[in-house]
Amino acid sequence: MKFPIAWSLADIAKLLDVRFIGDPDHQVLGINEIHRVENGDLVFVDHPKYYDKALACAATTVLINKDVECPPGKGLLVSDDPFRDYNKLTRYFRPSVFSKGNLGAETSISDSALIHDRAVIGNRVSIGERTIINAGAVIGDDVVIGDDCIIHANAVVGGDAFYYKRRPEGYDKMHTCGGIFIGDKVEIGALCTIDRGVSAVTTIGSGSKLDNQVHVGHDTIIGSNCLFAAQVGIAGCVQIEDNVILWGQVGVPSDVTIGKGAVVLGQSGVTKDLEPGITYFGSPAEEARHKFRELAMIRKIPQILEKLR
Amino acid sequence: MKFPIAWSLADIAKLLDVRFIGDPDHQVLGINEIHRVENGDLVFVDHPKYYDKALACAATTVLINKDVECPPGKGLLVSDDPFRDYNKLTRYFRPSVFSKGNLGAETSISDSALIHDRAVIGNRVSIGERTIINAGAVIGDDVVIGDDCIIHANAVVGGDAFYYKRRPEGYDKMHTCGGIFIGDKVEIGALCTIDRGVSAVTTIGSGSKLDNQVHVGHDTIIGSNCLFAAQVGIAGCVQIEDNVILWGQVGVPSDVTIGKGAVVLGQSGVTKDLEPGITYFGSPAEEARHKFRELAMIRKIPQILEKLR
Amino acid sequence: MKFPIAWSLADIAKLLDVRFIGDPDHQVLGINEIHRVENGDLVFVDHPKYYDKALACAATTVLINKDVECPPGKGLLVSDDPFRDYNKLTRYFRPSVFSKGNLGAETSISDSALIHDRAVIGNRVSIGERTIINAGAVIGDDVVIGDDCIIHANAVVGGDAFYYKRRPEGYDKMHTCGGIFIGDKVEIGALCTIDRGVSAVTTIGSGSKLDNQVHVGHDTIIGSNCLFAAQVGIAGCVQIEDNVILWGQVGVPSDVTIGKGAVVLGQSGVTKDLEPGITYFGSPAEEARHKFRELAMIRKIPQILEKLR
Repeated sequence: MKFPIAWSLADIAKLLDVRFIGDPDHQVLGINEIHRVENGDLVFVDHPKYYDKALACAATTVLINKDVECPPGKGLLVSDDPFRDYNKLTRYFRPSVFSKGNLGAETSISDSALIHDRAVIGNRVSIGERTIINAGAVIGDDVVIGDDCIIHANAVVGGDAFYYKRRPEGYDKMHTCGGIFIGDKVEIGALCTIDRGVSAVTTIGSGSKLDNQVHVGHDTIIGSNCLFAAQVGIAGCVQIEDNVILWGQVGVPSDVTIGKGAVVLGQSGVTKDLEPGITYFGSPAEEARHKFRELAMIRKIPQILEKLR
Repeated sequence: MKFPIAWSLADIAKLLDVRFIGDPDHQVLGINEIHRVENGDLVFVDHPKYYDKALACAATTVLINKDVECPPGKGLLVSDDPFRDYNKLTRYFRPSVFSKGNLGAETSISDSALIHDRAVIGNRVSIGERTIINAGAVIGDDVVIGDDCIIHANAVVGGDAFYYKRRPEGYDKMHTCGGIFIGDKVEIGALCTIDRGVSAVTTIGSGSKLDNQVHVGHDTIIGSNCLFAAQVGIAGCVQIEDNVILWGQVGVPSDVTIGKGAVVLGQSGVTKDLEPGITYFGSPAEEARHKFRELAMIRKIPQILEKLR
Repeated sequence: MKFPIAWSLADIAKLLDVRFIGDPDHQVLGINEIHRVENGDLVFVDHPKYYDKALACAATTVLINKDVECPPGKGLLVSDDPFRDYNKLTRYFRPSVFSKGNLGAETSISDSALIHDRAVIGNRVSIGERTIINAGAVIGDDVVIGDDCIIHANAVVGGDAFYYKRRPEGYDKMHTCGGIFIGDKVEIGALCTIDRGVSAVTTIGSGSKLDNQVHVGHDTIIGSNCLFAAQVGIAGCVQIEDNVILWGQVGVPSDVTIGKGAVVLGQSGVTKDLEPGITYFGSPAEEARHKFRELAMIRKIPQILEKLR
């Protein structure tokens, strides 16, 4: 998320009531997650394991819970609780506004789009030419849908990120302030759920087709012309390249990349990055021809036992 | 789907702007998929692998992309793109009409049926005696629901078939023009999705009970008194006979048959036809007693290694 | 479910038109399932396998299909069909009332709660302070939701129990008359389904967070501060203690207990009680470190075969 105007490091520090290290006039243009940051962005880090990564990434401002040396050209905000203060920032720049109605504010809906009376459209939503939003579909805030898409009945495009910090008193919710971008000619099946980015944008590339009951988590980026069969579940912060096919009930965890044109067979559970153009199977998923050989091997155990008797 | 009146082969050829082979007055009564065709039906085929099957099946008219000899008593329509022309036909005979409202045209709803104000009913829908349609349920076009059924909240009965042709420029959508037939005393759980047939009828037999979040694909035929637990996923063109029990999260791919009274244990992934009356387990699913023996065998590998040391 | 006033054994027998054994003035205060009964409750049993358990449990009245000796201080109702007569009782004390509207009767909704116009609220529903009910969410009858909860879009909280008795003529539905209790600071993700208890109360403890498309069956009890990722499926009558983490697509069958702080990795299928504090994996789920060792063992079969050649 970009701020409406540039803020100075000193002003952000004042807003959060924290100390800063660096040039007081250092510019902060927006906030983002570490996977998606660029020059001008602020990123937060609250675990020593990720300090170096956060300080070295493209973000030029780092909200951190340790007094460290400020990398040249960057700015630091030193907080005792960066998670809390990141939420303070996102709530300040994009507060949750609960609307009770079926059409939000600041929407841009093409005249040729077909929106069912029983669909619900949130705030800051854009819907392209000839796109169809079916009955009961709920489009949340900050969603952009391209041309010639179909959002099928009762799908939810724009839910909150499932992202919490565990504290002694319970789970503390990360405020969702990112969005969703859906390209052209995309179909989102009935009863799919697509979550908004935390502060970046969940993306589904043009021509991709999702069958019913597919789940896509926050900040995940899906390429073009992908095909996901029913009940596929994709966590947050996943990268799926173009032309990937996931068959029914496949599961994909956070932070993995699936290479271009890979195919994952039904019910497989991905656990690591997958190579382009290869077919995978199993839970954990392995290259399918290895997995099938393995299954054949298991059937040989009785004859091994026979030999050893 | 049957046409309102019989068409001649010559007239269909003119409509599609393609050549025909056979008697110009040869009658075409409707269109259907190869799994479900009968005398009078038109079927399409666009892959050499399926030419023989399509020419030999019960359909009496074949839309094909090759000049072949016309089987006696049949008619051929020779097109450079049968998929495109099949879509042209279905769009001509059953165009998609987007209705924004919560009650479609040509509906027949029994006086004793209970329909929630927040349910949505499509076009050409029939609902039987004492059937209950709960809040948020979306009944699409061309759906017949029998007596004493319950469609639970937010279920979607009548979504589009998930069926595309891969082309160099992306996925080309097959136009859905089939329907759904649900017998008597059927329960469709909350948030289930049942897709319409492409040109035939997805069927759920009387007395079958579907728990929440079950998915049933296009043109699948489910027998009577089946029991499917939550989150079962069934692809298109599946045949499930009477009294089948599928436990939670079972997956069933396209084009398989599950025999009468078979039981598939939780999370299993069916990959081939299953015999009647047998219990299956695993992904891929095997006869459960074999699978359990296999699991026991795996636990013996350490002692095999011990012996070999 | 408790009755509005105490009933005598003789009056219940008259209502059901069955014989009773015991003191005609013996008090019956409510009905419940065998997992949840307490003093004053009536329980039903119709299978010899469970006679002893039902007669010995905390329930003080037993609806049974056999003439047995009445335990001291208890009352018996002897029916040829206890399932049918239990349904008669629940339908008498809590008949299904179909309401077509979006707000039921006898609701108690906090002034600070935020309810979307497109949400549906059933009968006898209580919603606490600052709780948010999003668009399309359907809250069924007899649901209590605490403070600071979020029910996300199109979730269904209050569906019927998936509970049938198999009879020669088909499945006979158990009438749902129980409720749901959701504590404080609970999140129920988009398109989740939470079923009501049959006659007890499905419970989700304070601070628990459910991602999208999670299913929770009837009468299941979930502790505090649990975290369930997307597409988890939990059957009925499950007991999940505090701080349990279930990763995506995990399945949990009926009648198991998952101990405090246990973690179940993605796609695992629980089949038995799980110990507190342990991490599990696989389908069937085993202790994760055993399961990973087993997977490594399978990869050794080729070298075993090599050695034996």
